[in-house]
Amino acid sequence: MIAYATERAPLGVGLVQTRYATWLEPLMLDSGALLAPVTLAYETYGELSPARDNAILILHALSGDAHVAGRHSLTDPKPGWWDAMVGPGRPFDTDRYFIICSNVIGGCKGSTGPSSIDPATGKPYGLRFPVITISDMVRAQTRLIDHLGIDRLLAVAGGSMGGFQALEWATAYPERVRSAILLATTARSSAQTVAWNAIGRRAIMADPRWRGGDYYGYEPPVDGLATARMIGHITYLSELSLERKFGRAFQRGAPSFTMEQEFAIESYLEHQGASFNARFDANSYLYITKAMDYWDLPARYGSLDRAFARTQARFLLLSYSSDWLYPTAESLAIADALRRMHKPVEHVEIASIAGHDAFLVDIDQQAPIITEFLNGLTRERG
Amino acid sequence: MIAYATERAPLGVGLVQTRYATWLEPLMLDSGALLAPVTLAYETYGELSPARDNAILILHALSGDAHVAGRHSLTDPKPGWWDAMVGPGRPFDTDRYFIICSNVIGGCKGSTGPSSIDPATGKPYGLRFPVITISDMVRAQTRLIDHLGIDRLLAVAGGSMGGFQALEWATAYPERVRSAILLATTARSSAQTVAWNAIGRRAIMADPRWRGGDYYGYEPPVDGLATARMIGHITYLSELSLERKFGRAFQRGAPSFTMEQEFAIESYLEHQGASFNARFDANSYLYITKAMDYWDLPARYGSLDRAFARTQARFLLLSYSSDWLYPTAESLAIADALRRMHKPVEHVEIASIAGHDAFLVDIDQQAPIITEFLNGLTRERG
Repeated sequence: MIAYATERAPLGVGLVQTRYATWLEPLMLDSGALLAPVTLAYETYGELSPARDNAILILHALSGDAHVAGRHSLTDPKPGWWDAMVGPGRPFDTDRYFIICSNVIGGCKGSTGPSSIDPATGKPYGLRFPVITISDMVRAQTRLIDHLGIDRLLAVAGGSMGGFQALEWATAYPERVRSAILLATTARSSAQTVAWNAIGRRAIMADPRWRGGDYYGYEPPVDGLATARMIGHITYLSELSLERKFGRAFQRGAPSFTMEQEFAIESYLEHQGASFNARFDANSYLYITKAMDYWDLPARYGSLDRAFARTQARFLLLSYSSDWLYPTAESLAIADALRRMHKPVEHVEIASIAGHDAFLVDIDQQAPIITEFLNGLTRERG
Repeated sequence: MIAYATERAPLGVGLVQTRYATWLEPLMLDSGALLAPVTLAYETYGELSPARDNAILILHALSGDAHVAGRHSLTDPKPGWWDAMVGPGRPFDTDRYFIICSNVIGGCKGSTGPSSIDPATGKPYGLRFPVITISDMVRAQTRLIDHLGIDRLLAVAGGSMGGFQALEWATAYPERVRSAILLATTARSSAQTVAWNAIGRRAIMADPRWRGGDYYGYEPPVDGLATARMIGHITYLSELSLERKFGRAFQRGAPSFTMEQEFAIESYLEHQGASFNARFDANSYLYITKAMDYWDLPARYGSLDRAFARTQARFLLLSYSSDWLYPTAESLAIADALRRMHKPVEHVEIASIAGHDAFLVDIDQQAPIITEFLNGLTRERG
């Protein structure tokens, strides 16, 4: 992965900045509620072609943001969350494509969410923020794509919840999507994934610091959010990757015979919990996991086949052999439905021990597949 | 399972009672600490033969107790936790065998644990209870088997953490164990299982009601223990069984668009958390999961092969196809080591969708295998 990036594009997209678009017109939500104003944080890289036909929208997962590539300043310790995938000579090639990454509503990374000011009260929404769905997230994004002057996207692409959004784009706005790249994703949240999210939400709401959601200005529910994140984190990794990374190593070499945290895996989880608290809002975790739990494309259309009846996109599905959160069977269900509906689809299962996180970290295997898929689209067009 | 029990033994073992054995002599623990007095809760069923050669010790899992079969009173709503397996004509046939079930130290079901009175202070131990291991649990049980006048057990049998204890018996006291029946178990806790336990412990200790472990006489840390139990519970069930039992059903038929619990799986988890709080002590959860995390038989002996060097037992291993907590690979590792050491072993993988809990609920498939294994032992003896 490092070799790949170094050889082909040592500099990546360089310095970038997050932009914000705000609409005062209310956004109608699936719940029936109206949300206004609506702000979306987004970043773009590369240039929109004169024909406006080279735009690719990248959608992020649960804890992601609009900052997919590059650095915000020369002293930034880390680049964007998918930097190895986005840049000159990289699969989402900024020399050829106009790349957009949009944050989701409900989040805490610059878009309107529960930590935003509720214009009705002048205070943060907290739990007065309306419950949102994946459809609502995408409905807000259509405004951004309109704002950027783009009728039809060359591709929508995303992993995990980013894949939910990409599926929503391809099915709800079929005429606006030429292709969809779906990584490590599913067309419906399973009972097990609902269960993990529900336990995380319960842990947050049971933390007395949560205060019914009105903790802004106070210490936030750090223990609850840490528990939620730790549960999530284990579901993102395979048993084998945990075994290889941590095994049964003790931090101090031997059992302490106390209730202190002492296994290396415990310190790692503690670090994950603390660093997540430093960058994420607990209420946003409630809202976004709820949106994920509601995600059920076949239920909305009557069946998965029917969901794809009007799609105009070519689909590329990537699943990862050790992903037990959204296992390959979930991608196969999507690919099978697309084939039954005579829609163009390719599915590749990538051998990886990285679990669900493979789409973020196993770049070497997925990069050429995505590069070739996008090449095929532009060949077709040219 | 019901059909099986009804046809062959409608009455089971009938009314039973828990007994208690207490020793004043200090028990030396792996940590170096001494524990005294030590009480073990236990139940027995059937009669010890004059030759004292028909005793079978059943070991329980994390949240189990000594009450494996029968009822404590005529109004008892439920029988013991493995009632379908223990009784006249059942696999652990009380017409033929003398069945003993011993509770573990560290627990809260009548044996000495963190909720017991510390003789040094006259108050419950809380976190002053010494950290214990699976070896310590079994070392205490050797006193009980001595007390019952039994030199050699016909069998030790247990699932999950009960399997840990059975392995400990067979390896640490090889001359006392003629056979070991290991269900849904492992010879070492993996990084992933340590992680789940560690998250549960953290949730308990982060609950302000926990009070550093000194919550006796106050409201206990019900939210923390519920979170821990919910996490555990999901690991005990397969994704498919959750899908079949609950799927994406809403309690009230449709999304509420609130942060209320609304999926059927959420109500189920809530019920699991509440009922666990009614029957289990949070500090015992800390101590027993810690003992499980320390469980690492190959590390103690240098390798799994060496752990079995002196064993005299025949081994029967049962694993369950959908158990992802202690998957079949864990049983294969044990069986392979035993074969390399030329020890008698049978391993059967049972097809089940019930996940780790299969050993408790999928009685029909495992019952004849265990019956036959025990028959083989007594044929051999006779």
